[in-house]
Amino acid sequence: MQMIEKLLDGSKIACARLISKIENESEGYVDILKTIYKHTGNAYVIGVTGPPGAGKSTLTDKLVKHLRKEDKKIGIIAIDPTSPFTMGAILGDRIRMSDLNTDKGVFIRSMGARGHLGGLSKATQGAIKVLDAYGCDYIFVETVGVGQSEVDIVKTADTTVMVMVPGLGDDIQAIKAGVMEIGDVFVVNKADNDHAKRTRLELQMMLDFKKDWDFKPPVSMAIASEDEGIDELLKNIKSHREYQLNNDILMKKRIERNKIEIREMIHRYIEKLIANHEDASYIDELLLKSASKEIDPYSISEEIVKNILNK
Amino acid sequence: MQMIEKLLDGSKIACARLISKIENESEGYVDILKTIYKHTGNAYVIGVTGPPGAGKSTLTDKLVKHLRKEDKKIGIIAIDPTSPFTMGAILGDRIRMSDLNTDKGVFIRSMGARGHLGGLSKATQGAIKVLDAYGCDYIFVETVGVGQSEVDIVKTADTTVMVMVPGLGDDIQAIKAGVMEIGDVFVVNKADNDHAKRTRLELQMMLDFKKDWDFKPPVSMAIASEDEGIDELLKNIKSHREYQLNNDILMKKRIERNKIEIREMIHRYIEKLIANHEDASYIDELLLKSASKEIDPYSISEEIVKNILNK
Repeated sequence: MQMIEKLLDGSKIACARLISKIENESEGYVDILKTIYKHTGNAYVIGVTGPPGAGKSTLTDKLVKHLRKEDKKIGIIAIDPTSPFTMGAILGDRIRMSDLNTDKGVFIRSMGARGHLGGLSKATQGAIKVLDAYGCDYIFVETVGVGQSEVDIVKTADTTVMVMVPGLGDDIQAIKAGVMEIGDVFVVNKADNDHAKRTRLELQMMLDFKKDWDFKPPVSMAIASEDEGIDELLKNIKSHREYQLNNDILMKKRIERNKIEIREMIHRYIEKLIANHEDASYIDELLLKSASKEIDPYSISEEIVKNILNK
Repeated sequence: MQMIEKLLDGSKIACARLISKIENESEGYVDILKTIYKHTGNAYVIGVTGPPGAGKSTLTDKLVKHLRKEDKKIGIIAIDPTSPFTMGAILGDRIRMSDLNTDKGVFIRSMGARGHLGGLSKATQGAIKVLDAYGCDYIFVETVGVGQSEVDIVKTADTTVMVMVPGLGDDIQAIKAGVMEIGDVFVVNKADNDHAKRTRLELQMMLDFKKDWDFKPPVSMAIASEDEGIDELLKNIKSHREYQLNNDILMKKRIERNKIEIREMIHRYIEKLIANHEDASYIDELLLKSASKEIDPYSISEEIVKNILNK
């Protein structure tokens, strides 16, 4: 396909269009994914997560600028959560990133959780593949750490940066163990805040609690807005990368990512089978019967599955 | 089943156990759902959503106390979002609700987004059904409005209360249209805050923007912690209920809820079919091949679907 050749040739427009095709499940999108797959595997995926207002966008922005000095090609996928409350603020952050938008070596894409036929995480995995084939050395996936699918996405990153913010975690009780499960590298942003050191200390104590780390997550400090602490954070990310390369972990992670993608593709196939089911009106009839308690929804689902399998 | 008889007889312990069985997909959980289904349909489901810190728990708490004066039986499902950041705070809120915990007419259940085999929303729908059969007049489903599945759940409520908080929406740009799509009834909590009136005004302006409301969401003020404004909010909820009863909307909503449940049940069946697939090692082999680019994940999913359908 011409568009894919253009993508492999480094066309930003082709890149944007292919991502849209996959997002919207336009005709032939599976063929696109199949064709570009052999051109993927070079990009390193960095997840950036943390509570709203932690400065994830600014931090990503600075990390990208540092990597651009090394002449690396960068992709950024910013995931807007479903929430009508935080969506505004995050989109706002995106606009501040405008100086990166004009950088030919940086591709930025926003993704909303809503309106994706096949789910956010499938669309994001697809976009990662396209950016990988496009030739990105690093792909940043930025998301607030709320919502099941959002966390799932970040968990599939090669390295996940957990951005913490002082004050929020003043009470150690408020930071749950879940943070530890997700973060590979921690950074306390807004380190000029009085509580920053305490937050770092608490984080470290929390991490000390687990003794058998293979790679103990480093905790650094940063003031992203002042470009402070970015080098150290980048060094930590790279040492996590080294560790994984030396221990065959990256390959396993990528197989895991493929697994997730496969599962979601299968679900989409099944959904389409149901949607294309010739007895759609029959299902509507069953639903009406469920309203009057003549049949229950669980028996209906069994019946639908049976019908699909017998085709 | 004895347990179901106990549930219908009003046993709180049976209620808790049955919800757990459904949550964990213990053996026979589908039969439980099938059996209790004909005993459901009497409870009115109220979704309570809003940003973290808006005071949703306190507000729910007060609403429940007012309804208890009417001698209504109440179920509360508190959904802890996946986020490791907010989880702490919300669990904290739950503990404050301890005086309701000792009320025989109130059943409280916390649900975490993680660790549910079949997804949060399926587990929640199941819990709603059990509480309905248990005899609850009202079921509150409380969740922060972030994350795809969380919003999906709230959208299936009979009435969704959107709890807003002053300040957060000071900039009208920050409140996205999405809020309007979800909320049936709005309340500005913490109304003793200086910005409260402005927030209400902005909300009303936003709602005025759409001209063709069938039921224009009322906006009221409350100070939940002081038990102020609860009567008015309850009045608004009840008038939304009346409106829906008089316009045959409730039945449609419940069919919609069944639809969602059916879709998720089907996905679970399919997942189980994949998991029980005798060629599991064959899939592992394919995954390894995908790592070395011999095959792509999309062709693998097609193959798995084909295999399942051919069984």
